[in-house]
Amino acid sequence: MQELMIPLDSRQKVPLYQQIYRHIREEIGEGRIAPGEKLPSTRLLAANLGVSRSTVDLAYEQLYAEGFITSRPYRGYFACDIEGLYRQPRPERREAAAGEPRREAPEFDFALNGIDRDGFPYNTWKKLSRQVLAEDPDGELFSLGDPRGDAGLRREIASYLSHARGVNCQPDQVIVGAGNDYLLLLLHVILGPGRKVAMDNPTYPSAWLDFEKVGYEMCPILPDDRGMQARQLEACGADLAYVMPSHHFPLGTVMPIQRRMQLLAWAAGGNRFLIEDDYDSEFRYKGKPVPSLQGYDTAGRVIYLGTFSKSLAPAIRVSYMVLPPVLLETYRQRASNFSATVSRVDQKILELFLRDGYFERHLNRMRGIYRGKHDCLLNCLKGKPGIRIRGENAGVHLLVSLENGLSEGEAIRRAATAGVRVYGLSEYCVEGYVPDGAPTLLLGYATLKEEEIMEAARRLGKMWEIDR
Amino acid sequence: MQELMIPLDSRQKVPLYQQIYRHIREEIGEGRIAPGEKLPSTRLLAANLGVSRSTVDLAYEQLYAEGFITSRPYRGYFACDIEGLYRQPRPERREAAAGEPRREAPEFDFALNGIDRDGFPYNTWKKLSRQVLAEDPDGELFSLGDPRGDAGLRREIASYLSHARGVNCQPDQVIVGAGNDYLLLLLHVILGPGRKVAMDNPTYPSAWLDFEKVGYEMCPILPDDRGMQARQLEACGADLAYVMPSHHFPLGTVMPIQRRMQLLAWAAGGNRFLIEDDYDSEFRYKGKPVPSLQGYDTAGRVIYLGTFSKSLAPAIRVSYMVLPPVLLETYRQRASNFSATVSRVDQKILELFLRDGYFERHLNRMRGIYRGKHDCLLNCLKGKPGIRIRGENAGVHLLVSLENGLSEGEAIRRAATAGVRVYGLSEYCVEGYVPDGAPTLLLGYATLKEEEIMEAARRLGKMWEIDR
Repeated sequence: MQELMIPLDSRQKVPLYQQIYRHIREEIGEGRIAPGEKLPSTRLLAANLGVSRSTVDLAYEQLYAEGFITSRPYRGYFACDIEGLYRQPRPERREAAAGEPRREAPEFDFALNGIDRDGFPYNTWKKLSRQVLAEDPDGELFSLGDPRGDAGLRREIASYLSHARGVNCQPDQVIVGAGNDYLLLLLHVILGPGRKVAMDNPTYPSAWLDFEKVGYEMCPILPDDRGMQARQLEACGADLAYVMPSHHFPLGTVMPIQRRMQLLAWAAGGNRFLIEDDYDSEFRYKGKPVPSLQGYDTAGRVIYLGTFSKSLAPAIRVSYMVLPPVLLETYRQRASNFSATVSRVDQKILELFLRDGYFERHLNRMRGIYRGKHDCLLNCLKGKPGIRIRGENAGVHLLVSLENGLSEGEAIRRAATAGVRVYGLSEYCVEGYVPDGAPTLLLGYATLKEEEIMEAARRLGKMWEIDR
Repeated sequence: MQELMIPLDSRQKVPLYQQIYRHIREEIGEGRIAPGEKLPSTRLLAANLGVSRSTVDLAYEQLYAEGFITSRPYRGYFACDIEGLYRQPRPERREAAAGEPRREAPEFDFALNGIDRDGFPYNTWKKLSRQVLAEDPDGELFSLGDPRGDAGLRREIASYLSHARGVNCQPDQVIVGAGNDYLLLLLHVILGPGRKVAMDNPTYPSAWLDFEKVGYEMCPILPDDRGMQARQLEACGADLAYVMPSHHFPLGTVMPIQRRMQLLAWAAGGNRFLIEDDYDSEFRYKGKPVPSLQGYDTAGRVIYLGTFSKSLAPAIRVSYMVLPPVLLETYRQRASNFSATVSRVDQKILELFLRDGYFERHLNRMRGIYRGKHDCLLNCLKGKPGIRIRGENAGVHLLVSLENGLSEGEAIRRAATAGVRVYGLSEYCVEGYVPDGAPTLLLGYATLKEEEIMEAARRLGKMWEIDR
């Protein structure tokens, strides 16, 4: 490749080298610059674009550092094969087939895995971070800690879960880990190979992939409007069932108590476990909070999973699981050799954050913020003809089913044309299942501001022809 | 239990509640208070010890928080079954058999898994920590990062490994993870089940356990004085070999180049991989540094493992592995769904620590400190009759073989009587193997000060009757 046209805008706040970097990164990411393809020399590109060579150097350096391009001595720079390495288990990439309109970063992204960044309590976090380092003159926090996580943090988590989520646990049942994926890896070691896991279809791809990659046999189950059905669970022969009773992802279902009891009865009937993922249970906007499934479990067959990724920030990298007493000895024998994965400084910061009431206050504040966004999006869409809304009143996303004949793909494309990214429910289906009924879109509202939600919803209304 | 005698010393710097807490914790840990046994009420114990009830409350609270005791409403406090939950894969516990002298925390512990805490660059770390948080006004660091670790850190690691360890790698081969145990879990997902792993015997128990727990078949191999033997490796049918060519743990062997070449030839002969654990290669006190095995690998069969646990602090929880190019696609397909396990803030701090030369300076300083301790211990022991020293000139531990007829167990017991803890080589043997030749003790000197080393060595000389 000798030429590369990059539209530069010197009036933008984004520096020129960043514009070059982003453009090339996107070209490579979208496959328009193929793996192995040679990039123009920095001299040539600088001349072509009318910028200084050091500007191009900077851009290439960043691309190189991030693994988008590689260099060969005396030969120049070449595009790397990055397909997939940067791909999150978020399936929207499948949409980007050849011949489709070019995908720009959308103006409004109803992303499903983000948080409201402005809501993150930076100042408190920084303050606690300074405090923790200052209060550790002996460097105790830099020695190796308990593989389960430090006692103080486990105590705070147990106490929080007990009063806020009705979880029935002692600190010694809590195991802290760097993210859900890690905890599921550890759980695989604890439960051993050869398990058969039931998950709803549509499903939570991240957990599905984790189980699949460790070699568990997967049983997709079609849920009804109350969640996973115990009868199907029994029939499929699974010995593990992964459920999200508080707010299903992606379906938004809240599992009623009868269904919970049926699942618990299933689990009590053998060497079976329910894995309760309570990932965003902190956010409910209507009615009484539903206690965790774990709280109803008298047989000790529930493994409870929680995370600070949603309630604080994904980059905190702290999740936890609560093992039932029957697994504590198994953990000790099989998995207590795996050292803790969260730094003790971070554990201590989080412990203080919980202990001193910051988390409670943060949650209250975030509930207000997310409730505002939730209500805003709901108000924008509610009552429009040809759509049906599901999964509202909890979590940070909702589902919109189109009943006006528009297909899912068409709805996504039209939204994209208007600068809005939405996600198709079918992308969360596995093993070839196509959801029946009206095509359904997923709209996550955590990362958008209310005015952005209004503008994005206005555009969706127009593009989807659901305006009155 | 109605009475509990606790020797309290109000002149000690340790607060009374801490003395109570420590005493009970030890009683439970050593099994002298049996699991399920009822503890005296706080009122009673306070009266018996002549301290205030709130002092006992505090002690019980800490024991409770740490899972040593549990409470039952209206019935009181009971000892938990903690056997093993707190046990690290450090085998000295086996020594604590019934009837032996009571094990106190030793005055001098030649611990093998510690660092010199005074050497940790607290101020720099705190400064960078503040800087990183201050320079992230948009909270970019609190969103989810690359599953392999952030590009900047991977670039710095690749660059460090390339110039300091002769590792031949690009940043996109580097995968950052929260500790070696985690990376070995991930490696298991990448390499798939059913592998057969060769490790030296005596062995590094932490890695041995990791592999064993994920279900790999283990092949212990008896090394000669140059390390693992390729012929035995070939014979045992393993397809993975875990080696520590720079400084073997626990044997202290540095593998010569011929042996390295033989292992590389073995690995090139099939779908085989060498896992090179370069855990403490930063510390060498004599001769030229030996480049990594990976640097000689032309067939791309070496998986290189490194850690900041030894060079910085175990609690940093940052390790990394360098995958050979042939495994990059496998990683992408099988394991790129497992999110990063190190917080982005910590990654950024470490990136700056490496980038701005702090790590280099820190290593130079630590080399000086450890060299001082190494020379000090060596000077104390060298030339004494009846002992032989091995494994010196690198790492942070060395081996002392006793040739005066004293058994390993007797040497450990005698040292303990004098307040010195040393570790027996046989504790690092697996599958019933008893090392032949003279009984050998392991002495780690990282955590002790030079004057402590001198005093401890003096006592060892006396107790082992190796003084002239």
